[in-house]
Amino acid sequence: MATKHIAQWVVNLQTVPSTTRIAALRSLYNYIGCAVGGSNHPAVSKAHNALSPFFGPATSSLLGHQKRSRTDAQHAALLNGIASHVHDYDDTHLATIIHPTGPIASALLAWAEYQGGVSGEELLVALTVGIEVSCKLGLAVWPTHYDVGWHITSTTGVIGAAVAVGKLMGLKELELSHALGIAAVQVIGLREMFGSDTKSFHPGRAASSGLLAAVMARGGYTSSESALEAKRGWANVVAGGGTPRLDELVATLGETWEIEANSFKPFPCGIVCHPAIDAAIRCHGEMQERRLSPAAVKSVKLRVHPLVVELTSKARPKDGLEAKFSVFHGCAVGLLYGRAGPAQYADDVVASQAVIAVRDRIEIVSDDSLAADEVYLALHHEDGTNLDQHIEHAIGSVKVPMTDVQLTEKFVDQVAPVLGDRGARTASTAAWSIGEAEDITQVMQILKAAEGAR
Amino acid sequence: MATKHIAQWVVNLQTVPSTTRIAALRSLYNYIGCAVGGSNHPAVSKAHNALSPFFGPATSSLLGHQKRSRTDAQHAALLNGIASHVHDYDDTHLATIIHPTGPIASALLAWAEYQGGVSGEELLVALTVGIEVSCKLGLAVWPTHYDVGWHITSTTGVIGAAVAVGKLMGLKELELSHALGIAAVQVIGLREMFGSDTKSFHPGRAASSGLLAAVMARGGYTSSESALEAKRGWANVVAGGGTPRLDELVATLGETWEIEANSFKPFPCGIVCHPAIDAAIRCHGEMQERRLSPAAVKSVKLRVHPLVVELTSKARPKDGLEAKFSVFHGCAVGLLYGRAGPAQYADDVVASQAVIAVRDRIEIVSDDSLAADEVYLALHHEDGTNLDQHIEHAIGSVKVPMTDVQLTEKFVDQVAPVLGDRGARTASTAAWSIGEAEDITQVMQILKAAEGAR
Repeated sequence: MATKHIAQWVVNLQTVPSTTRIAALRSLYNYIGCAVGGSNHPAVSKAHNALSPFFGPATSSLLGHQKRSRTDAQHAALLNGIASHVHDYDDTHLATIIHPTGPIASALLAWAEYQGGVSGEELLVALTVGIEVSCKLGLAVWPTHYDVGWHITSTTGVIGAAVAVGKLMGLKELELSHALGIAAVQVIGLREMFGSDTKSFHPGRAASSGLLAAVMARGGYTSSESALEAKRGWANVVAGGGTPRLDELVATLGETWEIEANSFKPFPCGIVCHPAIDAAIRCHGEMQERRLSPAAVKSVKLRVHPLVVELTSKARPKDGLEAKFSVFHGCAVGLLYGRAGPAQYADDVVASQAVIAVRDRIEIVSDDSLAADEVYLALHHEDGTNLDQHIEHAIGSVKVPMTDVQLTEKFVDQVAPVLGDRGARTASTAAWSIGEAEDITQVMQILKAAEGAR
Repeated sequence: MATKHIAQWVVNLQTVPSTTRIAALRSLYNYIGCAVGGSNHPAVSKAHNALSPFFGPATSSLLGHQKRSRTDAQHAALLNGIASHVHDYDDTHLATIIHPTGPIASALLAWAEYQGGVSGEELLVALTVGIEVSCKLGLAVWPTHYDVGWHITSTTGVIGAAVAVGKLMGLKELELSHALGIAAVQVIGLREMFGSDTKSFHPGRAASSGLLAAVMARGGYTSSESALEAKRGWANVVAGGGTPRLDELVATLGETWEIEANSFKPFPCGIVCHPAIDAAIRCHGEMQERRLSPAAVKSVKLRVHPLVVELTSKARPKDGLEAKFSVFHGCAVGLLYGRAGPAQYADDVVASQAVIAVRDRIEIVSDDSLAADEVYLALHHEDGTNLDQHIEHAIGSVKVPMTDVQLTEKFVDQVAPVLGDRGARTASTAAWSIGEAEDITQVMQILKAAEGAR
């Protein structure tokens, strides 16, 4: 029933509550910043160069790109999906650690430009549909699915992308269930890849594979009509030994809106170490007030949620990519510089003696009584001072969300190195107003016009 | 170690034993027949039409196609992969029920034509490499991986395709391990899809995704270097609750050759019901000798391996696709016509009253003391005669392999409806000699020349 129920819900949904629409716009806005900001990353260039011999008709924009700025919809979905995730700076549905927008928006924008005449309003509804479906599916198999080793962003994202594009296409109920099925057999993403280029491949491939599923279903390609709930269907196969709660979660579609619980990363690294970075930045402020040198930290003890140890305990990251999974690095730059933005994750910063010296004085202790957005930090300074911080809810968490102003700062911070300062401001204004666009191709044009600034 | 070991083995392999080479040629020959034979199936047309707006430069042949007979390598891999499996007539590595050649050969041929200058010998070595890796991986996670619901053909095929193409490309060891990793995160295929178009999508998508993995690794895209064996790597995540025997199986690479155990289907349907069809065809012969009408069968009792019940117990298939998973249909046409070729799986045959009348008089009983290629058939005729058959090893099994002559008959039987009788003979000769080709593009040309016959 879950497959049919989802297909019906997606087909029948006309509008979404205003709070949901706001959440969708913030999600899309944050996505655009991430995708443009990631567009000049070496992983994206490598993928672009390797795949360009296979590019089809250039209908769909590669966000942020100046040259060769369009390709076919499938490759655009793949490359924008990689770019959106490559700095680990995207959004997070905290209850599942899904980064929901990347796979879905990458597929949607690529298809919308191919199709033409898609309004911003339609885009936001389709994005919402995709995010709701992927997050409900994620909740249905959480936590065993993630525990066993699946990268839940892409395993659920491919299905979200398929239904979202199917919604834009106006697929009928049966076609939509076929799209769901074709997407469900492409289970993409393993946590083992965290720290390599392949991690960002996951949302990219989820985008292109979800798009492909919708395209094939539209062409009459058939699938099982109980792809999700069957004995050997998606949920049971990928549940990692747990009992999926498929019917229970699917029944909440349209009643609780997962997109409203979507959060945005203030720091470009694994979200579980954000509380520690938040605490470190506050300590930096306190040290400044007390005129204590951050370089003269004697020892730092972090009491952290167990996932921090599991996911981000790289004690000696060798470059920026590995540093994203090092709570030690994040905490060190927070203490030293009072910032942990993209600049603090550059390879040379990660390898600098100043950072390493502080990093090596940090230890972490797992405490399963803590919430995921909570941390205790105890710092001993060489001058004898002790500083303590307790972060109950880290910045960027559901309880302490980033404001629109903070999101705009983050956007400009990401986009300026690609499109220039002025281009970034123009792009930001265009992205905030995408919901009003009669044809989102107009917005893509504005983003392209801004490219001249590079 | 498994990932590194495989990469080393693949890179270092220069030649294969002559028995292995023969098995590779037979596998490739059978594949070409299946892919050409499946090329005019509606599932292939639907996929072709849906995806054609995204086609890139036309470098690679669509086997059997007359019009629009080339596309980009990725789409060629996908579409040929679908065609090769769509009649469920392909090869089988019986120890794992993997149909190994489809994903790998589809990726290889598509890439070889793109690259140019690939000899038949290189192609056969690369095919062998891919099949060895996918079958060893399949054995390492068998049977729990299959039991939980993965379609093992495509879950292992995507990795086999990546290493095979990587071998043709001449990737270095580290690049090859990256290709392995990028392939391993794309886990494609659920058994729930058996009976829908999506089943044949599995090997197609495994082909295009494996090719993509090799292409990206060649472009410097990185992955985990322990993608297969890591705690949250491929084997542990997809093992379905079992304990993978990865090191044990990988150590046998080059010592035992899985491709030599590859078998070829004499009937275009689920392999587990082949013993029953074999028995039914023998019964048909016996009835003819005794001048008994096959239409006047009173009852048939089949004692079968449990997988027959699990996989092929559709008692009332509604069309040819469903009939492939009906031991009842296969047995009925075997009894009635003494044949179970593609013609006996046409929709109108499946729906005919004559077939249904016999089909409804067949019952099956599961017997776990039987081997997978074994069956007992007990037939009661309306005239009072009782006939019994015990098939110890079905035709097409490892013990009773199809001869080259039988393979040729099967090839021509499949290819003639697409390329005409004369075209089928020409194609057969070309396919048998592919190992001697200096550039396999020549063979593709011959296959294309034959197309004029349609």
